Amino acid sequence: MAGIVDANKVLECCQAISKFTEEPGRTTRTFLSPPMTQVHDLLRAWMRRLGMSSWIDPAGNLRGIYSALDADSPRLLIGSHLDTVPSAGPYDGVLGVVLAIALVEGLDGRRLPFALEVLGFSDEEGVRFGAPFLGSKALIGSLSHELLEKKDAAGISVAQAIKNFGLDPRAMDAAALRGEILGYLEFHIEQGPVLEHLHLPLGIVDGIGGQTRINAIFRGSANHAGTTPMNLRRDALAGAAAWILEVERIGRSVPGLVATVGNLRALPGASNVIAGEAHASLDVRHIDDAHRQQSVKRILAAGQRIACDRHLEFSAETVSERAAVRCDSGLLAELEKAVGSAGFPVHHMSSGAGHDAMILAEKYPVAMLFLRSPGGISHHPDESVLCEDVQAALESGQRFLDQLAALHG
Amino acid sequence: MAGIVDANKVLECCQAISKFTEEPGRTTRTFLSPPMTQVHDLLRAWMRRLGMSSWIDPAGNLRGIYSALDADSPRLLIGSHLDTVPSAGPYDGVLGVVLAIALVEGLDGRRLPFALEVLGFSDEEGVRFGAPFLGSKALIGSLSHELLEKKDAAGISVAQAIKNFGLDPRAMDAAALRGEILGYLEFHIEQGPVLEHLHLPLGIVDGIGGQTRINAIFRGSANHAGTTPMNLRRDALAGAAAWILEVERIGRSVPGLVATVGNLRALPGASNVIAGEAHASLDVRHIDDAHRQQSVKRILAAGQRIACDRHLEFSAETVSERAAVRCDSGLLAELEKAVGSAGFPVHHMSSGAGHDAMILAEKYPVAMLFLRSPGGISHHPDESVLCEDVQAALESGQRFLDQLAALHG
Repeated sequence: MAGIVDANKVLECCQAISKFTEEPGRTTRTFLSPPMTQVHDLLRAWMRRLGMSSWIDPAGNLRGIYSALDADSPRLLIGSHLDTVPSAGPYDGVLGVVLAIALVEGLDGRRLPFALEVLGFSDEEGVRFGAPFLGSKALIGSLSHELLEKKDAAGISVAQAIKNFGLDPRAMDAAALRGEILGYLEFHIEQGPVLEHLHLPLGIVDGIGGQTRINAIFRGSANHAGTTPMNLRRDALAGAAAWILEVERIGRSVPGLVATVGNLRALPGASNVIAGEAHASLDVRHIDDAHRQQSVKRILAAGQRIACDRHLEFSAETVSERAAVRCDSGLLAELEKAVGSAGFPVHHMSSGAGHDAMILAEKYPVAMLFLRSPGGISHHPDESVLCEDVQAALESGQRFLDQLAALHG
Repeated sequence: MAGIVDANKVLECCQAISKFTEEPGRTTRTFLSPPMTQVHDLLRAWMRRLGMSSWIDPAGNLRGIYSALDADSPRLLIGSHLDTVPSAGPYDGVLGVVLAIALVEGLDGRRLPFALEVLGFSDEEGVRFGAPFLGSKALIGSLSHELLEKKDAAGISVAQAIKNFGLDPRAMDAAALRGEILGYLEFHIEQGPVLEHLHLPLGIVDGIGGQTRINAIFRGSANHAGTTPMNLRRDALAGAAAWILEVERIGRSVPGLVATVGNLRALPGASNVIAGEAHASLDVRHIDDAHRQQSVKRILAAGQRIACDRHLEFSAETVSERAAVRCDSGLLAELEKAVGSAGFPVHHMSSGAGHDAMILAEKYPVAMLFLRSPGGISHHPDESVLCEDVQAALESGQRFLDQLAALHG
């Protein structure tokens, strides 16, 4: 494995890219903001040195081609996103793009029976327009006219932002993937504590969990906290509190389920007034849609039961629902073999967060490999990744390419 | 009892006063706001017809004297407050002042061996300056220079507001009570559901509960709601929820205790982020200070225990603490006798809310009589009182005066 790139080079590249920011002193790089040009320039220069051709598609995605032995060979896509949340760390998204190019470098000019297309998506986080996955949606042809008309806080539309970046939104069709695609592979930091907790460098992602988001309201009676005896209260906040514990209990009772009340608001919200209303958010995720839906049902039934016991009213509105996405079993088998033969423990897991792979999975086979997130920290300047884990990803990735080459040779 | 005023006259007077407001369409009358002049004019005209002298003291309190048989007789004070919360009902405070004058009218010119001083306090709610009891504090000489310098939202100080009303804040000493005072009697709507729940018109108030106000904080880790498994969470909001139920349980376990979490804020408060912090208010009241303090200790210990079990941090800061106030046993005995002999059930209770009587109790014997609050509703336009309960208060009050006259005759 002499061709494998030094993991330090990957880390240094990510750190260099983190300096390209809209906000001095911290990393913030939203959809087609000016610093994105610097990221493109840096990565395109590297790809040029590797003999790759590259372009920026009409959605602002970085596209780099490492051609195959034959011109009419299929392509394998590898990549992730180049935009960030405000005050981001250096690795969320960027690491997956840099690893993709490093894998090409590791080939040392060797050509495979398939082309490699490196993808650096322009938007996954959805920070600027409140709509995520603008980049990957363009590749599967689902960046709708409606999305292109969406406006940011400054009143600039997606289409106008594309024009301002020097691109032509009317040419969006050119961004769509064509030809034979073997699949899409995405390296990404876990952004959670599981791998660290298990002392594992890598996790093979079987799929991306489905998600249900609900706004729930408990209604009681707002009354004077001093003059209303405990037995004559209809305390909406106490009802919500009982429900939050039920959400937690149900979340714990189903393996792989996560159920979260992240926000809660008491009305009127005065220290000397019993809450007449309590508004709570609910976020439920599971890799199995039936398990998720069943759990949501149990959680809502618990809300009704608590409300009934406490003479409150309970209502719940589903804000959004997203089905789970399964990774491709063929690609997963190759990934498992690659990780194992590189000498690392094979651990399967699901992703609780959404990723570009979820969008591409609508049309193509996808696979993801997670790298351990120290402290589970992401979306924060303290986000990090271990050098040895990056090395493990590089070694596994190289074996994955070799296996695929053997299969398609 | 031919002299007793018709309760309808009392209700109509309160309703007329509710039209004197700063805000069209609803009743809002803060400290020395312009409509307070109209209230004073209306009540002073009535008192004049009853042969009473009246004045507005330097704190803006309405003071009316119905003189005794002899010039050097002691005085009995009867009254309540004339200011309101925003969007108030017609009876909170006002009813106690109107009932006081109605009791004088019921004497039909008959003189007692003590003078009656009707008090209509300028501020009990504390809405304009964020400091309650400005009126009653002036009567016991505790309206401090600091309080006089306190400013409202428009930057006007209490002293300036007094000047703007045509009064002289430098003459504040003249507001302080002097001479022999038999005590202070206050009629007030209950502002709670207890009397209605027990089907009782009147409640004899043994005392006003002490109060502890605390701000509590649970601290955990803010993490991704999708990627952090249930067993690796440090969810501050779930900890706060467990505590709210403990607050409720402890509140229910001690007779007469009320314990309330009225406000709760989750941080960062996003639906897809596990709460890293939860800030909760706590309000604990009991007529027995030792019981209250003991309960607060148990509640804080529960917070610590929950935090420990859940690997959270818990901190609590006492915002304010107010000792309970006992009503005068002599006056209470007379009130009990008066209510009973007027043919109404004698029910003793404590007040969970603060009242002007609490301030006067620092220097004088006080007693309070609660009138049933339909639906427990107060601080709301729907606030009401039953005509028959006002009649019961008038009859009991008249007997109370007669008994005291016999004692001091």
